[in-house]
Amino acid sequence: MKAPVGNMLIAQSGGPTMVINQSLVGAVLEARKHKCIKHVYGALHGIQGILDENFLDLGNETKATLEAVAVTPSAALGTVRKKPTAQDCEAIFQIMSRHDIAYFFYIGGNDSAETVHIINEAARRAGSPLCCFHIPKTIDNDLRENDHTPGFGSAARFVASAFMGDDLDNRALGGVKINIIMGRHAGFLTAAAALARTAPDDGPHLIYLPERPFSLDRFASDVAAVYKKLGRCVVAVSEGIADEHGTSIASAFSKEVDSHGNAQLSGTGALGDYLATELKARALIKRVRADTFGYLQRSFPGIASKTDAVEARGVGAAAVKFATGGELCGSVAICRVPSEDYAVEFKCVPLRKVARETREMPPSFINKAGNNVTQAFIKYAAPIVGDLPKITRFEALR
Amino acid sequence: MKAPVGNMLIAQSGGPTMVINQSLVGAVLEARKHKCIKHVYGALHGIQGILDENFLDLGNETKATLEAVAVTPSAALGTVRKKPTAQDCEAIFQIMSRHDIAYFFYIGGNDSAETVHIINEAARRAGSPLCCFHIPKTIDNDLRENDHTPGFGSAARFVASAFMGDDLDNRALGGVKINIIMGRHAGFLTAAAALARTAPDDGPHLIYLPERPFSLDRFASDVAAVYKKLGRCVVAVSEGIADEHGTSIASAFSKEVDSHGNAQLSGTGALGDYLATELKARALIKRVRADTFGYLQRSFPGIASKTDAVEARGVGAAAVKFATGGELCGSVAICRVPSEDYAVEFKCVPLRKVARETREMPPSFINKAGNNVTQAFIKYAAPIVGDLPKITRFEALR
Repeated sequence: MKAPVGNMLIAQSGGPTMVINQSLVGAVLEARKHKCIKHVYGALHGIQGILDENFLDLGNETKATLEAVAVTPSAALGTVRKKPTAQDCEAIFQIMSRHDIAYFFYIGGNDSAETVHIINEAARRAGSPLCCFHIPKTIDNDLRENDHTPGFGSAARFVASAFMGDDLDNRALGGVKINIIMGRHAGFLTAAAALARTAPDDGPHLIYLPERPFSLDRFASDVAAVYKKLGRCVVAVSEGIADEHGTSIASAFSKEVDSHGNAQLSGTGALGDYLATELKARALIKRVRADTFGYLQRSFPGIASKTDAVEARGVGAAAVKFATGGELCGSVAICRVPSEDYAVEFKCVPLRKVARETREMPPSFINKAGNNVTQAFIKYAAPIVGDLPKITRFEALR
Repeated sequence: MKAPVGNMLIAQSGGPTMVINQSLVGAVLEARKHKCIKHVYGALHGIQGILDENFLDLGNETKATLEAVAVTPSAALGTVRKKPTAQDCEAIFQIMSRHDIAYFFYIGGNDSAETVHIINEAARRAGSPLCCFHIPKTIDNDLRENDHTPGFGSAARFVASAFMGDDLDNRALGGVKINIIMGRHAGFLTAAAALARTAPDDGPHLIYLPERPFSLDRFASDVAAVYKKLGRCVVAVSEGIADEHGTSIASAFSKEVDSHGNAQLSGTGALGDYLATELKARALIKRVRADTFGYLQRSFPGIASKTDAVEARGVGAAAVKFATGGELCGSVAICRVPSEDYAVEFKCVPLRKVARETREMPPSFINKAGNNVTQAFIKYAAPIVGDLPKITRFEALR
């Protein structure tokens, strides 16, 4: 198909990440290379900004500003958690026609892919040549068709770094430390805590993921066993842990749901406090502390994974290349190239394959007992997260 | 006084910091320059390690290892929260005599200075030439006689960086974000959140410190006013906030006290959750989130303030210089030199002047309304914290 001529509209959606602006800037800079793209508009706060016709002309931004925005965490255009109705999608499609939009790019997770999918279907029904693309983003690393997703590597680098420091803190003071990590259904980010280990007795000593049923009794006996051996224990727990019936443990403390029907898990320390209290009572350990890493996991500046930043830039540029190269719609997927060294390629995959459903950790990444990760996970995640801070201990204590 | 000849014993105490190992390594490397110091021992877990005669011979550690330990967060010798009894101090003094210790260095906060003070008095009573020195450390920045303390600058850099990212996150999504910061009686670390601001509408928009009485009604109306104006609000709250009677707000949720009689404030998200719940009810704001930064503030690797690292190294070396230079006892204090540029010098001050009592934020650092800091604080803290990550927004949004 010949690339249409017209304007481009881009927006950001869902939870921010440390590198979602890399994808935005990657797309904007790539667009400047293509004559078929006239004006480049950014909509503020995702589809809400489209419905409100709240646009910025990104053609006015200098390259220096774009590069500075690219290394700034969070969504520079603002973001939104809004599931559009069929009526919204029709309105969005009309607004885009009025602004002569020929290219629409939406950066987000599976819900955002679903939104693009719906708008794309409206465009197809109307016989419009509108190009509709989803650009992947999620710290949860749970998009189908992707080896991994932009945003995950940097959040994972925060989590692994935090565990390196926190394990040293626990080593110095003793007791039990529980850290609650983001991830509603997929445990990838929690699993990344394992990258903190540099010696056999380093924490996290136990890792609890949403992919395996969580039992308080089992948790208490696991921790007690480590504590008995080392006099301390560091635990990584996903905010999304659920019991054998699939009921989220944290949902008992949450009274708030978002527009996608998801219970609020982040922005509260309730799950960590609950586990610490239960553990004190069950395992009779005096010093038990819990931290909930919260929003810092996705927003802490200056510590992004270099690999993640490069790939986030890459998927943004790739979406524009696919669209101007004749593809009508799709989602950009990161695929790992089988090779000795780490390498990826970007593919254009059908929107419906990425929309709605998410993926979880494969069983090969989780140990049999369901309280740790395997070496296969470490091998998978290490190149995405990249280099970590150097730490050491005295030779006499090694 | 002529410097005694004998062995040196050094240990770490209280909460770890990102740079307490700099002080340890500063002292150990300086000791190697002085012939009057024979063996250099490190006691594991502070005075507990002395009582247990649990010593490492730090003379066996290579310079490369020492330098690598110096940039590793947390206490490499382990630490302890233990207030020694008079009997403990007597035992410690006997053990040190037996190991021919002529130089004792204890790195910690005001409680640790108190411990050194008591051991020093036992030595003086016994007519021993034992040199007893306190090396300052605390992220709370609350030691008397000091312009600021090693550990504060790096923790403050974490807090300021975290607020930069979190404010961008809040800007992108809206709502109210409350972040709970460490600091039992002194608000310096919470105040450091203000360094995150790069534009007039940047958060934190409100800052609540232990130095001013906290009122829920006032808090709710302050937040509602900012929210009305900006559609969002980012708040920094010290874990140590207390009501008009001086009763800690968090103590209502804490059932645990340490050996110094302090209630557990960190390692729980209860205060943040309480404030978020109250705020939702009082200000009728839907999206309210709370994060408690917790132990990451003092342990996150790879992001220490360069100034803080240099000064922490400096106070360790200075203590050994004072002791080998003929001082019998004292605490090293960081004093700011009046000058155009930022500069400090290290002084030897009497132990009793640093022990027990702490200091709070001076009134000139807090605004009249008691919900923010002044420019005087920013000027004070900025050089200690040093450079921060670069962030920006689109020119059209400035």
